[in-house]
Amino acid sequence: MNKPVSQAEFPTPTVTTGPLAGSRRVYTQPEAAPHLSVPHREIDLHPTANEAPVRVYDCSGPYTDPAASIDVEQGLARARTAWVTARGGVEAYEGRPLSPLDNGGATGKYLARAFPVRHQPLRASGAGPVTQLEFARAGIITDEMIYAAERENLGRAAALAGAAERRADGEDFGAAIPEFVTPEFVRSEIARGRAVLPANINHGELEPMLIGRNFLVKINANIGNSAVASSVEEEVDKMVWAIRWGADTVMDLSTGKNIHNTREWILRNSPVPIGTVPIYQALEKVGGVAEDLTFDIFADTLIEQAEQGVDYFTIHAGVRLAYVPLTAARVTGIVSRGGSIMAKWCLAHHTESFLYTRFEEICEIMRAYDVTFSLGDGLRPGSIADANDRAQFAELETLGELTKVAWAHGCQVMIEGPGHVAMHKIKANMDKQLEVCGEAPFYTLGPLTTDIAPGYDHITSGIGAAMIGWFGTAMLCYVTPKEHLGLPDRDDVKTGVITYKIAAHAADLAKGHPAAKLRDDALSRARFEFRWEDQFNLSLDPDTARDFHDQTLPKEAHKVA
Amino acid sequence: MNKPVSQAEFPTPTVTTGPLAGSRRVYTQPEAAPHLSVPHREIDLHPTANEAPVRVYDCSGPYTDPAASIDVEQGLARARTAWVTARGGVEAYEGRPLSPLDNGGATGKYLARAFPVRHQPLRASGAGPVTQLEFARAGIITDEMIYAAERENLGRAAALAGAAERRADGEDFGAAIPEFVTPEFVRSEIARGRAVLPANINHGELEPMLIGRNFLVKINANIGNSAVASSVEEEVDKMVWAIRWGADTVMDLSTGKNIHNTREWILRNSPVPIGTVPIYQALEKVGGVAEDLTFDIFADTLIEQAEQGVDYFTIHAGVRLAYVPLTAARVTGIVSRGGSIMAKWCLAHHTESFLYTRFEEICEIMRAYDVTFSLGDGLRPGSIADANDRAQFAELETLGELTKVAWAHGCQVMIEGPGHVAMHKIKANMDKQLEVCGEAPFYTLGPLTTDIAPGYDHITSGIGAAMIGWFGTAMLCYVTPKEHLGLPDRDDVKTGVITYKIAAHAADLAKGHPAAKLRDDALSRARFEFRWEDQFNLSLDPDTARDFHDQTLPKEAHKVA
Repeated sequence: MNKPVSQAEFPTPTVTTGPLAGSRRVYTQPEAAPHLSVPHREIDLHPTANEAPVRVYDCSGPYTDPAASIDVEQGLARARTAWVTARGGVEAYEGRPLSPLDNGGATGKYLARAFPVRHQPLRASGAGPVTQLEFARAGIITDEMIYAAERENLGRAAALAGAAERRADGEDFGAAIPEFVTPEFVRSEIARGRAVLPANINHGELEPMLIGRNFLVKINANIGNSAVASSVEEEVDKMVWAIRWGADTVMDLSTGKNIHNTREWILRNSPVPIGTVPIYQALEKVGGVAEDLTFDIFADTLIEQAEQGVDYFTIHAGVRLAYVPLTAARVTGIVSRGGSIMAKWCLAHHTESFLYTRFEEICEIMRAYDVTFSLGDGLRPGSIADANDRAQFAELETLGELTKVAWAHGCQVMIEGPGHVAMHKIKANMDKQLEVCGEAPFYTLGPLTTDIAPGYDHITSGIGAAMIGWFGTAMLCYVTPKEHLGLPDRDDVKTGVITYKIAAHAADLAKGHPAAKLRDDALSRARFEFRWEDQFNLSLDPDTARDFHDQTLPKEAHKVA
Repeated sequence: MNKPVSQAEFPTPTVTTGPLAGSRRVYTQPEAAPHLSVPHREIDLHPTANEAPVRVYDCSGPYTDPAASIDVEQGLARARTAWVTARGGVEAYEGRPLSPLDNGGATGKYLARAFPVRHQPLRASGAGPVTQLEFARAGIITDEMIYAAERENLGRAAALAGAAERRADGEDFGAAIPEFVTPEFVRSEIARGRAVLPANINHGELEPMLIGRNFLVKINANIGNSAVASSVEEEVDKMVWAIRWGADTVMDLSTGKNIHNTREWILRNSPVPIGTVPIYQALEKVGGVAEDLTFDIFADTLIEQAEQGVDYFTIHAGVRLAYVPLTAARVTGIVSRGGSIMAKWCLAHHTESFLYTRFEEICEIMRAYDVTFSLGDGLRPGSIADANDRAQFAELETLGELTKVAWAHGCQVMIEGPGHVAMHKIKANMDKQLEVCGEAPFYTLGPLTTDIAPGYDHITSGIGAAMIGWFGTAMLCYVTPKEHLGLPDRDDVKTGVITYKIAAHAADLAKGHPAAKLRDDALSRARFEFRWEDQFNLSLDPDTARDFHDQTLPKEAHKVA
């Protein structure tokens, strides 16, 4: 249960604001749409460097902009809503009435306070394009696409000098990374399903971004309260903290009571796409008894969350009845929570999963709000021993089949991947995913490359994440030091995010992304010239670098790089 | 300078003793030499597991054995000296007289206390075999080889069931890992130069071990005081702490004063091979002026250290005069300390390096004590930008040439490798090393896969280390979170060691080492069955795993693995 506070006592979440050390949030206006203001971060260098500021990708939102006024009770500005309504195809409506069950029946002091502002939801109003995929296929470049293209280029007006050489220097395993990202390139990547732009029409606070093999590798941070730990305030703070250090998307994996209200606070304050696993909330609505789940309860939960603005849903529709016995001889069975819920349901009813049989109805709901599918890998391996087995790959084949169904309904799709995989078996995962899922973006958890280091699974998985990112995975779901042991706190969130920024950047470098190496080179020059402040400020975590340095030695001892 | 204490006040180093949580140090007697007692560690499982204890490789020395009596003032027992003298070919002699310069001229309260016991040094007495390589070529299996074979097998009397399948399941890039390691296999690997057994005849305290591509991947931890920080006690404690968590060898990189005495305390208490970079001490002897270095001062330093029992020397003999200009256009020039000392010497005298021109004389010294060469990569890249450039590879080719010279003199050789290398350029390093160095073991620092995360370089480099270990590197030199920023403290040493144990183990798994996966499987079974204590005890760091778990949640929330 959450902290027992009355509605009146419920504290306003406090979040970390202010710029990262030595840097400023800056904005550029894309040529194709000068009304858009696209954020980046610029790191200023010491005058002796005689170098321009280094510009880096920024997903920290207005929180790092001293000029922005932050009021967590109001939420962020909803600039994007105007873009959505301007292009039409959507209608405002009353929305689904809130049920006490949406917050697990919590009442009185156990009920987390509702977000103070209510926005009327939008939904598709007809057959015209409403999803980014539908617009892309219709040849229409949306504001979101222009915005995201500008971000990927770090606001450059043209390809930087040397981009072609940096591309040629990489090994991208058949990706098609351009030297310069045009809005048209973004459109074409979305149209062919090779990238997603997760952007629920009800998430007006969103700063649009891209997930795809031909763009910068992205990372996701999981947050969420549980039945027993943490509160709404802590989760809002963790979200802002995670994006400060570089999380490109955030998944709210809350369980227990107050799921609805927690999510509302997170969404209204989030500039990054928010993902959820709706079956978690559906399960709460049936008292935690998997066998009692029904399609209607699930579909109602999808609508509830889609109206709030969740940008992508993990849906474990590939856990088919026939696959469950394939896990019987595994060392660690089914370790995905969503996967085990659905396996239990299938076995109890001895029936095919309703997520699979009624997948087209799910697509219709997803399309109406442009919620992106994140097809869950409910049968992912939970140990090195179970990697790449028949259960895992049978499910992946089904996810490939469902990808095509979702695409036919105009829905954006990405595919979730493992898990625990030794290094020599990682590439086979990427290759098979590309083959059976029509190049839909891959979104993997790690993978962890050994099982023997609980307490350090950010590292066991950071190794696998860097490799699979290099091979073509579009987004890496972080793992924190608390994996397998407990819920991450604020420090764990930061450690997980920084570790995964390392993995994503190492992958971008190896792929030969034209922008990636500029930052390494700037930092290396600073290092060689003993510009300590520049070295700190150019690093992923200036505070820690500075702190470590200040703990110890004079310059002489550091000459070895 | 070290802490100013008088000789009498100098405190006895305190070291951490006692077993790791849930485990025992055990010993087995090899069939081929029942007088040897070879250590392993056994982790007991909960009775409900109904499984035998899990045996793992142990390099912690007698410190984790409650039955051993530890007296740091006396040093460890010198069981190995009897093996060395029994097979002959060595003579005891008076040894080189200690010079005040050996401790940087420190006097009075600034002079670290000498180690209380002096052992007369041994050296080769004739042309008969004295090095492990010479014995191996002569078809003689030494006690050290038998001991190390028994360790690699974790004391198994025969190949474990399933070893062949685990081998077949891996990808080893042409390595020749056997299902079961026989003493004869060890001999043949050493004879052909594909493995080293670093074991100075004066390091009687040593528990012999192997470094080679067809054995378990090993890790090295660097310690060492500097001109301004840490004391003898701290360094002895760090050595014991590093091997407790899994360091297979330790390099003493001390600089400043008291180098000789610090090293003596470390060696007399070390069961693992100790490596040094002798040019560091030679430089102190000429007041830090690189140009003043001479071959005689260097050779005298080699003898000084060889008499003490140092097991391997990093020697940057591949930094040739002609290569120095190749670094001029680099982003980070020459970052190896040894490399830059020698480059400075070469340029100042405009002469070929004496390490290169008088390499055969160096070989004679190394052979007389069986000190293993670790041919240093003085021109390794210090940034992603400089990786795999002409300077680096020119030096590597020279190291290959010198390897053959050293082999001709009966010396064991390993080759040091980079450095900073993006993922897609790592394999080329391994392939080239194998090609030009006749399969002599590769010993790499990381490599770091990006430059942008100072404060987290154990992770940026752990990624590269796991990969290059998989590709064939025999030993991985750790990097701590303080890399580039300061000297590691005790916590940093532990973090570095655990990170590198992860990398080495991930590499063993991917190579299909027949013993590696057993531990993962045991831990995964414990995880799946919620045997929490077993999960903690089987992990690389039981204390941290237990601590993280106890901080947070009840079992329900952990079901997701």
